[in-house]
Amino acid sequence: MSNSIGTLFKITSFGESHGPYIGVVVDGCPAGLTIDSQLLTTDLLRRRPGQSSITTARNEQENHQIISGVFEGKSTGAPITIIIPNSDARSKDYDHNLQVLRPSHADYTYQAKYGHRDHRGGGRSSARITAGWVAAGAIAKQIIAAKGINVQAYVNQVGSLSVKVPYTQLDLNTTESNIVRCPDAPTAAQMISLIEKVKKEGDTVGGVVTCVVSNMPVGLGEPLFDKLHAAMGHAMFSINAVKGVAFGSGFEGAAMRGSQHNDIFEPGDKITTTTNHSGGIQGGISNGEDVVCKVAFKPVATIMHAQQTIDSEGNPATIKGRGRHDPCVVPRAVPIVEAMAAIVLADFVLRAQSTTLVGS
Amino acid sequence: MSNSIGTLFKITSFGESHGPYIGVVVDGCPAGLTIDSQLLTTDLLRRRPGQSSITTARNEQENHQIISGVFEGKSTGAPITIIIPNSDARSKDYDHNLQVLRPSHADYTYQAKYGHRDHRGGGRSSARITAGWVAAGAIAKQIIAAKGINVQAYVNQVGSLSVKVPYTQLDLNTTESNIVRCPDAPTAAQMISLIEKVKKEGDTVGGVVTCVVSNMPVGLGEPLFDKLHAAMGHAMFSINAVKGVAFGSGFEGAAMRGSQHNDIFEPGDKITTTTNHSGGIQGGISNGEDVVCKVAFKPVATIMHAQQTIDSEGNPATIKGRGRHDPCVVPRAVPIVEAMAAIVLADFVLRAQSTTLVGS
Amino acid sequence: MSNSIGTLFKITSFGESHGPYIGVVVDGCPAGLTIDSQLLTTDLLRRRPGQSSITTARNEQENHQIISGVFEGKSTGAPITIIIPNSDARSKDYDHNLQVLRPSHADYTYQAKYGHRDHRGGGRSSARITAGWVAAGAIAKQIIAAKGINVQAYVNQVGSLSVKVPYTQLDLNTTESNIVRCPDAPTAAQMISLIEKVKKEGDTVGGVVTCVVSNMPVGLGEPLFDKLHAAMGHAMFSINAVKGVAFGSGFEGAAMRGSQHNDIFEPGDKITTTTNHSGGIQGGISNGEDVVCKVAFKPVATIMHAQQTIDSEGNPATIKGRGRHDPCVVPRAVPIVEAMAAIVLADFVLRAQSTTLVGS
Amino acid sequence: MSNSIGTLFKITSFGESHGPYIGVVVDGCPAGLTIDSQLLTTDLLRRRPGQSSITTARNEQENHQIISGVFEGKSTGAPITIIIPNSDARSKDYDHNLQVLRPSHADYTYQAKYGHRDHRGGGRSSARITAGWVAAGAIAKQIIAAKGINVQAYVNQVGSLSVKVPYTQLDLNTTESNIVRCPDAPTAAQMISLIEKVKKEGDTVGGVVTCVVSNMPVGLGEPLFDKLHAAMGHAMFSINAVKGVAFGSGFEGAAMRGSQHNDIFEPGDKITTTTNHSGGIQGGISNGEDVVCKVAFKPVATIMHAQQTIDSEGNPATIKGRGRHDPCVVPRAVPIVEAMAAIVLADFVLRAQSTTLVGS
Repeated sequence: MSNSIGTLFKITSFGESHGPYIGVVVDGCPAGLTIDSQLLTTDLLRRRPGQSSITTARNEQENHQIISGVFEGKSTGAPITIIIPNSDARSKDYDHNLQVLRPSHADYTYQAKYGHRDHRGGGRSSARITAGWVAAGAIAKQIIAAKGINVQAYVNQVGSLSVKVPYTQLDLNTTESNIVRCPDAPTAAQMISLIEKVKKEGDTVGGVVTCVVSNMPVGLGEPLFDKLHAAMGHAMFSINAVKGVAFGSGFEGAAMRGSQHNDIFEPGDKITTTTNHSGGIQGGISNGEDVVCKVAFKPVATIMHAQQTIDSEGNPATIKGRGRHDPCVVPRAVPIVEAMAAIVLADFVLRAQSTTLVGS
Repeated sequence: MSNSIGTLFKITSFGESHGPYIGVVVDGCPAGLTIDSQLLTTDLLRRRPGQSSITTARNEQENHQIISGVFEGKSTGAPITIIIPNSDARSKDYDHNLQVLRPSHADYTYQAKYGHRDHRGGGRSSARITAGWVAAGAIAKQIIAAKGINVQAYVNQVGSLSVKVPYTQLDLNTTESNIVRCPDAPTAAQMISLIEKVKKEGDTVGGVVTCVVSNMPVGLGEPLFDKLHAAMGHAMFSINAVKGVAFGSGFEGAAMRGSQHNDIFEPGDKITTTTNHSGGIQGGISNGEDVVCKVAFKPVATIMHAQQTIDSEGNPATIKGRGRHDPCVVPRAVPIVEAMAAIVLADFVLRAQSTTLVGS
Repeated sequence: MSNSIGTLFKITSFGESHGPYIGVVVDGCPAGLTIDSQLLTTDLLRRRPGQSSITTARNEQENHQIISGVFEGKSTGAPITIIIPNSDARSKDYDHNLQVLRPSHADYTYQAKYGHRDHRGGGRSSARITAGWVAAGAIAKQIIAAKGINVQAYVNQVGSLSVKVPYTQLDLNTTESNIVRCPDAPTAAQMISLIEKVKKEGDTVGGVVTCVVSNMPVGLGEPLFDKLHAAMGHAMFSINAVKGVAFGSGFEGAAMRGSQHNDIFEPGDKITTTTNHSGGIQGGISNGEDVVCKVAFKPVATIMHAQQTIDSEGNPATIKGRGRHDPCVVPRAVPIVEAMAAIVLADFVLRAQSTTLVGS
Repeated sequence: MSNSIGTLFKITSFGESHGPYIGVVVDGCPAGLTIDSQLLTTDLLRRRPGQSSITTARNEQENHQIISGVFEGKSTGAPITIIIPNSDARSKDYDHNLQVLRPSHADYTYQAKYGHRDHRGGGRSSARITAGWVAAGAIAKQIIAAKGINVQAYVNQVGSLSVKVPYTQLDLNTTESNIVRCPDAPTAAQMISLIEKVKKEGDTVGGVVTCVVSNMPVGLGEPLFDKLHAAMGHAMFSINAVKGVAFGSGFEGAAMRGSQHNDIFEPGDKITTTTNHSGGIQGGISNGEDVVCKVAFKPVATIMHAQQTIDSEGNPATIKGRGRHDPCVVPRAVPIVEAMAAIVLADFVLRAQSTTLVGS
């Protein structure tokens, strides 16, 4: 396994869905930063199960504890470790999964790769783990905020319902005003109805989260192989259930002509472009425009229907979802996407400090 | 900059478009492998400029030289270094770019980040550099071939023309039979016409490459943060002009229900699934089904039209493409996509060898 | 800061001397290994303060808790996290250190580098942190034991008292039979007397730990830059108070002739050498002979004498040790040296599994 | 194999003793630095074989070529690649080594680990490879020189002849005034005589190189696991034939009392210490005093005597050195030690730029 990500700002994730704690070690946080524990709580509650009628009923208070690296409210440069207890794990719900392989889950691949696995609640492969990432992301956000950078994600699509207006015509500060986290109120209402309907049917549905990074400095990104979008893409694909990632024009860009797609520079003191098909990144380096990233999530694999499947010996079996699960992950994925974006950006802010020699 | 990728099988890229050589160091190639230099030539010629009427006219013979790590035709475990001369660089063509910033190129971001850049032919940001990756990929292909793994990419879309049938109904061995590298002959013909038309107009067009990895072993991928698709996504986003990457159902999966999307296991000796919306990866680990990845390329930024732009002082300027450029990159991107897939897979084959203790 | 070490078997350390917990995340432990928690306890108690009359009086029970990565007594491949509470921290003892810089401690350098530091008990720079390394080392020992490898360290020198016989004439299984951990009983008795005398004088004394790795396989080590002894040396220099590391003939080898120093091969089925000046490593790769490493520790900086020093403004000041400190670290350093050796060896055992392609 | 070292300033080494080129890729060199190719030549000539009567007769001109990363005399931020042809390789000299294992060489361990090796002149395990490191080191020296840091190494011991005065009483600028590179002229004369005598006897002799880094900034080093001396120790142990590394008091420190060893701070504007037993590093971080490192080299393994050994089947055999070899490596090791020190320091200078957030 490989449970760390980042070069200078690096997080190491640990824990299982039904262990005593999940957590994270954040190494490389610059010293002297005021760490606002409340901001961790805020984001953890945004990701928290049981937060609304359209999320899983698992009820976690997400009472995180910072056990190292912060002294008198400030980072010391030492690794910051955060642990979060799993207080509402019901392992019994998963006894039936021991022998039966859940379709489109990680049961089979974990079993095949590791031989021995903690099957309770998905164990290490559970999205529960992302609570630690969100905590780390809340620290990363404080680093990038010190440079003025702002990360805001929102739900852009649920099933085939999508927001039709570009984000520049939305007020992203209203994202938290509804439980689906969509800043386009009419579409939000439709999305909520759809998720409720899907939930009632015992089914699940996918969606798309859009992430907008505004007030970007020019120069973040380390080509060739740590292009800003390559590293962000890596981080996004690390999130459970993500099947696609796109920047700027994305897959639509493939259908365009160069004469349409090129982002024309505007004369002026600050260099800007009239359009942003590049998604704020050219040659792997930020150009100061907003970084715009879309992240596609497949529907949750656990459904409340009976499904044909097999057991670990390959014999036919039937499975029906038990446990507590989300009918659609994207509302809770919004803070996770923001966290991963912030974690990558914090790393690149620090890395950019070594592009040239300082003070010589 | 960060010019290495991989953990155990690691490549380090170097060189600029108009320097004496571009090249690559491949570290971690297992010892004792027969290295067929001809396979490097084959893939380099597939990527080669000047190969057909729909590619740039720059004429490189791609005469690579292996200068270390191979002895008597076999890998020794030592780093394999490959250099490729730049024989047909015409730096003069780029003198006009010194002051004027080309829209949607890396001129501005490189200039802003590094201050000092080699502007000739895009310098370090040029796709010329990917010749080294293709050479490294040809070595990686020999590693994964030893495990039976096969990587085949093809052009799935040019502009708004796309292949309508799934890859399972195509013969991927026919991909090389036409210059656009599309195994669906009627669509290929249309694509070629479109590219010729676009070229005549002095414009460019984007496209999509699909990559299929067949005969996959179960168990490749290192969650949480080096999930197989996260690492492959990282590698694909490293390729010039890529704006989107998707696995399996990708962005279409967002619109689906769980009951549709779940890949049902089939009873039997070998564990397989009836559908492959997962794209061969569950929980970040290969499940033995084909890994299917789509990579979206924006249209080439250099067009032969006059475009409004600015100079490096922010003053208005006009630019018109000179030099030799591709009207559409996807035909030449096919071997690059394959190379990056193979490079990641070779790394994960080696990493998987440490999941459990061998022989104890 | 950089708080991780290792490539495939990697540990991440966290915690401060007077925080609620110190701990470690062990990533890359092979799946399916029986993890004997008692072996962690055994080594933690060997490192434990307050274990004998010649160690510090700080009294820690070292009740570690494994909070992830082990299920039903076996490793799952997921990261193994161990936390150890700091139960006997007396932060008040250190209030006098806030302004005054302790000579030959890390107070000044941490203050200068990070600006903001946890000064209590040395904070992050305290040797207390090594408890986590010892716990990780106890897991690493279980990995290498599965390959037959055995790591045994002992105290070879205290002050100017040193063991005169080579380790091959000692019974290393008697190391734990005395509180100074020297398997040469007469020398051990002298060492204990010396430490008691030094302690009574309020002074401290240095020493040397010898580490012997026996039953080594041939082929561990990853030249050029991860030669086995380079990685082990790195790990040893990471231990607090280490000023020198040597392998085989070490500094004595500098005075020798090639004709004396060369280790002559002996004919036979198993390839062995008549002498072992190489310390079991040739060209950075183990040759199957015992790996022999010497690690020199400076005397503990905290002494119970008044010393001239300065405060953080550079003004003259006087300091006199308070708190609870060791008069000589080497007895407690023995399990730390073993742990770091085992951690490196476990990594190289896993890395060696990728030298060639398995099963193809 | 693992042929890269460094985190932000990273070098990747390649090549074999008798291949067409050896070389190095330097990634992470800050952009905009004037790269003086002449300084590479200077250091390469200091390491060059055939430079004096006491070195090997192999005659290399070390005509390096910078093939990437430098444009109009300045670094661009892109990887800097340097190739150096092997012009005087005489592979025939090594045919007799194909079957016979040379004692205390890497023949056996490379053969056992990799199965397949380039035996000519030691192949990848040859010290020839360090020419690339010296070239990279000459670039690193230019980086650290921009911060005022100065690295100077010298020969402190040959056989049992050692310099008796501390380096502070020597003029290190005279090191190059004699062929043994010892700035203590009377001892230098004795050393030269000793090496000539040893050479005449067909034998070899070991030695010690001392490395002094002066004008150090405070704050270089990344504890816990990248303490400055741990990383430097790692780099030094990477050099062929090194058996021991020590900082400050080193192994002598083990015999000292804390009351003697502690480096007392001196009151004043700039914080300094009266002694430097710490070797300029406390808690893994530089304190502004000189970093002082001693590196012990074993005697060269190739001697001109007949030695008993075995062949690769384990049968008795006899070997007698042929080829061209050094009777003592330390004179030529001086620039190698400096290079490795500079490479580590350049990395830590860049890493220190991320300890705190710049400009926020």
